[in-house]
Amino acid sequence: MTDTSPGGLSPASAYARAGVDIVAGERAIDLIKPAVRSTWAGLAAGFGGNGPRVLGDLGAFSGLVALGNALKDPVLVSSTDGVGTKLKVAIELDRHDTIGRDLVAHCVDDILTSGAVPLFFLDYVGMGKLDPDRLASIVRGMAAECRENGCALVGGETAELPELYAPNEYDLAGFIVGVVERDKIVDGSRIEAGDLLWGLESTGLHTNGYTLARKVLADLALQNGYPGLTGTLGEVLLATHRSYLPTMRPLLAADLVRGMAHITGGGFEGNIPRMLPPPASGQGRLGVELDWGSWKVQPIFELIQRQGDIGFDEMTRVFNMGLGWVFVSSERDAEQVRQLAPAALPVGRVTRADAEGGPRVRLLGAP
Amino acid sequence: MTDTSPGGLSPASAYARAGVDIVAGERAIDLIKPAVRSTWAGLAAGFGGNGPRVLGDLGAFSGLVALGNALKDPVLVSSTDGVGTKLKVAIELDRHDTIGRDLVAHCVDDILTSGAVPLFFLDYVGMGKLDPDRLASIVRGMAAECRENGCALVGGETAELPELYAPNEYDLAGFIVGVVERDKIVDGSRIEAGDLLWGLESTGLHTNGYTLARKVLADLALQNGYPGLTGTLGEVLLATHRSYLPTMRPLLAADLVRGMAHITGGGFEGNIPRMLPPPASGQGRLGVELDWGSWKVQPIFELIQRQGDIGFDEMTRVFNMGLGWVFVSSERDAEQVRQLAPAALPVGRVTRADAEGGPRVRLLGAP
Repeated sequence: MTDTSPGGLSPASAYARAGVDIVAGERAIDLIKPAVRSTWAGLAAGFGGNGPRVLGDLGAFSGLVALGNALKDPVLVSSTDGVGTKLKVAIELDRHDTIGRDLVAHCVDDILTSGAVPLFFLDYVGMGKLDPDRLASIVRGMAAECRENGCALVGGETAELPELYAPNEYDLAGFIVGVVERDKIVDGSRIEAGDLLWGLESTGLHTNGYTLARKVLADLALQNGYPGLTGTLGEVLLATHRSYLPTMRPLLAADLVRGMAHITGGGFEGNIPRMLPPPASGQGRLGVELDWGSWKVQPIFELIQRQGDIGFDEMTRVFNMGLGWVFVSSERDAEQVRQLAPAALPVGRVTRADAEGGPRVRLLGAP
Repeated sequence: MTDTSPGGLSPASAYARAGVDIVAGERAIDLIKPAVRSTWAGLAAGFGGNGPRVLGDLGAFSGLVALGNALKDPVLVSSTDGVGTKLKVAIELDRHDTIGRDLVAHCVDDILTSGAVPLFFLDYVGMGKLDPDRLASIVRGMAAECRENGCALVGGETAELPELYAPNEYDLAGFIVGVVERDKIVDGSRIEAGDLLWGLESTGLHTNGYTLARKVLADLALQNGYPGLTGTLGEVLLATHRSYLPTMRPLLAADLVRGMAHITGGGFEGNIPRMLPPPASGQGRLGVELDWGSWKVQPIFELIQRQGDIGFDEMTRVFNMGLGWVFVSSERDAEQVRQLAPAALPVGRVTRADAEGGPRVRLLGAP
């Protein structure tokens, strides 16, 4: 246990002595309040009229969001995530203004797979020692990403747990709730063999594979640049998780999207099949063919593979390999997809999977 | 960093070598699935007709809950919490079937202060080493408490973070969303001087004050009984957080409740004023008088106070002191409150606070 106020120094109270500093907690709340409030207007603006909005100051113990009546048959879509050991990179670099963005963007993307847009977000921060400035930096990052995604940050819990975390360490968890009209839920049921597979490029590792990446890169310095990288290794590893909401929103509004997958832990094989309809749907067993080379693999992935002497298959099961998002449209909608989302790359096709139990993702032209 | 598969033992893959065991993760999911699903029926039953319900299996990346149209003007009420260092007691006793109950009950109580009933819950578990049986035990506890509160457990994230947590340790965060009709929100605005203050007894420390409690009790054995305790010290410390929903629900349905406070960290002074209307409301500055002796203070609090030689004021700022919940009704509703909630104890009154800046909670007859 870490003692924040060693015996003999006339601690203010027994509670401060046992490691929980209430004054630091109050200072942290003062620091983060403006950032939190700055996210509330965007939610109301995103829906217009009598849509969802934060009822500020009503809930002393909780966050309150009125749903309004802008939605006919609303379905609430929720998800929770952490950022894994990407935290360790932030801690080593003592840079905490982007990790909150990662947390929010990851959550936004997870509910987007069902076609949902964000309503509100809450965070949990467990810390070894409550450092108000560091906490404010983390929360301001969350608030910035919330604002950009029209999501209200309505609550959070900060726990100072000196017995569980080292003084300089912390863990983060994010919780998001979004909403989708029931008849607009994207669940893969309309996907057919022959449909087009589109991809959106990632901004790097996002929040997955850091345990492996940090292990194999342990001999390299985060402060240094390496061949191919566009910044220092630390900057490239901290590149924030991309929210795919701005790109996907017009496609969803135009009803062009039959399925979406967020490429997180588990890589292609672990995530792409999750968007496909189950065999029982009458579609047979579907899979995808993914054309290796149809998107850009950032140099950080090559560096990790080389440094760790990791097999190609393993790489595609752990990392997004530059492809953070895939979605499916029918072939006849291709031109409209290109117009509404110029960033979308044609990366493959939906196929009938060859055999029971075989892989549902085939990488064509892979090394 | 903890290495789950030391070099030379032909690890299955580079990823398992770096500390994340995917097979254990899949086994854990198989173990917890039935418990998670068992919570879904209760949500639908609680609202009847076209009320909220889980859309199972639709959201591969997220939990989906249809809101239905049983509510006229629904307000979503959300909260997030951890269980603090109560975790350390569970870990020391290697007993993980109740800590999930604590997490859910704490969250249920937090949103109940606004008059909301639960819709759904998600959890985050960060672990040093993914132990499927331990995780299943934790999640089964959550599921049991969710079932009893009509709350659907719709999602969760388990992160194996050997670099952040010791192999035997973990942290938990819970996230709840509930709902209340807009015109039924309980926000303290109807509270007046002279109103009655009612209390509901806690089941012990709930989830607050464990850092201090464990410090002052460090010389005692968790396996032993001590004078006054109704079980071993470990059993008394692990007694689960009480959900006040079953007791409060009929009172809320009858519109008898003007304000509620959940006595958590910060004790009486830190929590009771949060339910009172702000001075700007035209009510003047209100406070409460709390009659010490009108509820039972469990022996565990006396043991902590004696062992730590802690002042009485300090005790009431850290612990619930046996009073886990207070609520306010008008004096003329007293008889109805007694009939609908026989467990509610008259514990004091709402008063005009004496002076600007003075305490808003006065304990009458305190030692």
